[in-house]
Amino acid sequence: MSRTFNVVQYGIGPIGLSCLRTILSKKSHINLVGVIDIDPAKAGKDVADILGLDTPTGILVSPDADKVLSSTKPDVVVHTTSSFLARMYDQLILCARHGASIISSTEELAYPYVRHPEISAELDRVARENGVTILGTGVNPGYAMDALALMATGVCNQVRSVTIHREVDAGLRRLPLQQKVGAGITEAEFAEKKATGMFGHIGLVESIRLVADGLGWNIDRIEEHLDPVVSRKEVVTPYLTVKEGSVAGIHHHAYGYDGDQLLLTLDLKMFVGAEDPRDAVKVDGDPPMDLVVKGGIFGDTATVATLINGIPQTFFAEPGLKTVKDVPLVRAFGTR
Amino acid sequence: MSRTFNVVQYGIGPIGLSCLRTILSKKSHINLVGVIDIDPAKAGKDVADILGLDTPTGILVSPDADKVLSSTKPDVVVHTTSSFLARMYDQLILCARHGASIISSTEELAYPYVRHPEISAELDRVARENGVTILGTGVNPGYAMDALALMATGVCNQVRSVTIHREVDAGLRRLPLQQKVGAGITEAEFAEKKATGMFGHIGLVESIRLVADGLGWNIDRIEEHLDPVVSRKEVVTPYLTVKEGSVAGIHHHAYGYDGDQLLLTLDLKMFVGAEDPRDAVKVDGDPPMDLVVKGGIFGDTATVATLINGIPQTFFAEPGLKTVKDVPLVRAFGTR
Repeated sequence: MSRTFNVVQYGIGPIGLSCLRTILSKKSHINLVGVIDIDPAKAGKDVADILGLDTPTGILVSPDADKVLSSTKPDVVVHTTSSFLARMYDQLILCARHGASIISSTEELAYPYVRHPEISAELDRVARENGVTILGTGVNPGYAMDALALMATGVCNQVRSVTIHREVDAGLRRLPLQQKVGAGITEAEFAEKKATGMFGHIGLVESIRLVADGLGWNIDRIEEHLDPVVSRKEVVTPYLTVKEGSVAGIHHHAYGYDGDQLLLTLDLKMFVGAEDPRDAVKVDGDPPMDLVVKGGIFGDTATVATLINGIPQTFFAEPGLKTVKDVPLVRAFGTR
Repeated sequence: MSRTFNVVQYGIGPIGLSCLRTILSKKSHINLVGVIDIDPAKAGKDVADILGLDTPTGILVSPDADKVLSSTKPDVVVHTTSSFLARMYDQLILCARHGASIISSTEELAYPYVRHPEISAELDRVARENGVTILGTGVNPGYAMDALALMATGVCNQVRSVTIHREVDAGLRRLPLQQKVGAGITEAEFAEKKATGMFGHIGLVESIRLVADGLGWNIDRIEEHLDPVVSRKEVVTPYLTVKEGSVAGIHHHAYGYDGDQLLLTLDLKMFVGAEDPRDAVKVDGDPPMDLVVKGGIFGDTATVATLINGIPQTFFAEPGLKTVKDVPLVRAFGTR
């Protein structure tokens, strides 16, 4: 894998911008050939201007995906535009038709087959037709609550159930994440947001499906719960203050059953003031496994890492729509 | 992967016997079609007699590998005969020529390219010619000190160095392992054993090569050290007694350098009376990773698990000689 990959960055919101920085820091491994974003404020600007770099890169941001893809013919597109597949799967189709493999942060793409069976079939068909791979990944879904759990089971002869905890101190993360988890709002406001159906973490169901499929397990029922974590003390972050009694963040938990057997438990807490941030996988198996990432996996940078580190695996994988369980172990790439 | 795999077990020492038990416990996923072992005491016996089962399996142990392979045509051979490639690579060649993929516990096969370049090239050539895969795995090498470390780096944008600790309480393991680590012998006896060059753990160098290759790192020098762990108290196991001042086990450690830069540290302690048994990976990176398997991965059963769980990946992989970094994430298989 010592080749250099020609890469287009598609979408330069906060995660996309971090991807750009990482891509440019790995010049002997990755060659940035184009950047796509629909924001008129960014169109036509050199990537260097947007990132605040001294030397122009010669790569201008363009809103015209078709033009960028046909003129640059990338090996892989790093795609970071939306959490929801229905909103943007035409973007993936376009990349595939241009012969580019795609690694995407779209949460629903981490395991799209159940929520979006038709879109999944279409993506798989177009990817195969064009000899490219489409892969959804990220830190969660894509790693912390699914791939790492599957990895933990690799040394078990029997597995009866898997319990996955992720506790994130949102106070250490960027403002959008603190807002995303409702830090500082009241419980009534939390209930309102929850009622919209567009609040909370996206991906627990995808992670359950991914782990179950990886283990060859049937899951016929998934229960999902979203509760506020109420702060027992005042917490001040660089961006906001959470008063005692107001919402510090979310407790999002989901359970996968086969009949009345609870097989998979995913427990996610993201709140400011978390005292035991960690990622943990417990496998009730033979032998059992008790795996912990102390301090937890730092989401902002780790999400970028999963995307950039997955470039070689996405490029070399068999054509089609894939998940992280289908490709060789994603490990750090281009670090020396 | 809901198909059933026809499997031959090649070698039924302690690990091979455990593999047999696991294979027979997964009948809806694995179909045992043959067993090969050269031990005259086992030849001709039904597997059930050897395992102490009530019902005959109809599968007789045979020393004639050629005959077993040609009459049973297995999808995959689970191979557990030797730690050393030079002693048995003809066994792998024979399996490959019969069209069987192979998953093997041979430690040197976990990353054979540097220590055995010619054998590796030959294995790769014959595997490709016959459309089969040859994969070496196990808990160590194959998982604890290499695959798990690579997995940990998957969420890192930069990696400066990786430090891997494995501490095993040999007192909880079977007698051969306690003997293998020299539990109960004197320091002078330890020195004698060490001087033979056939003592200590096999696989640290393979793990270093595997991690380095996975990360695309150059390693031009490996330092390896083997020291006794001297017991500070008397420890009694079900099999033997280690007196205060005698050897409790091994401290085997290895270091991978690029020039004068220390990139990889592997620190393995296997001794009776270990107080903090664990597997730990520390990645000095961005973000850093501090991953721990509390209590450690229990080697005896876990080694069997890596072999049996790897059957589907070995079968479905591209033909050739592969390592665990080349195949999709090995996870538990056939557990329901």
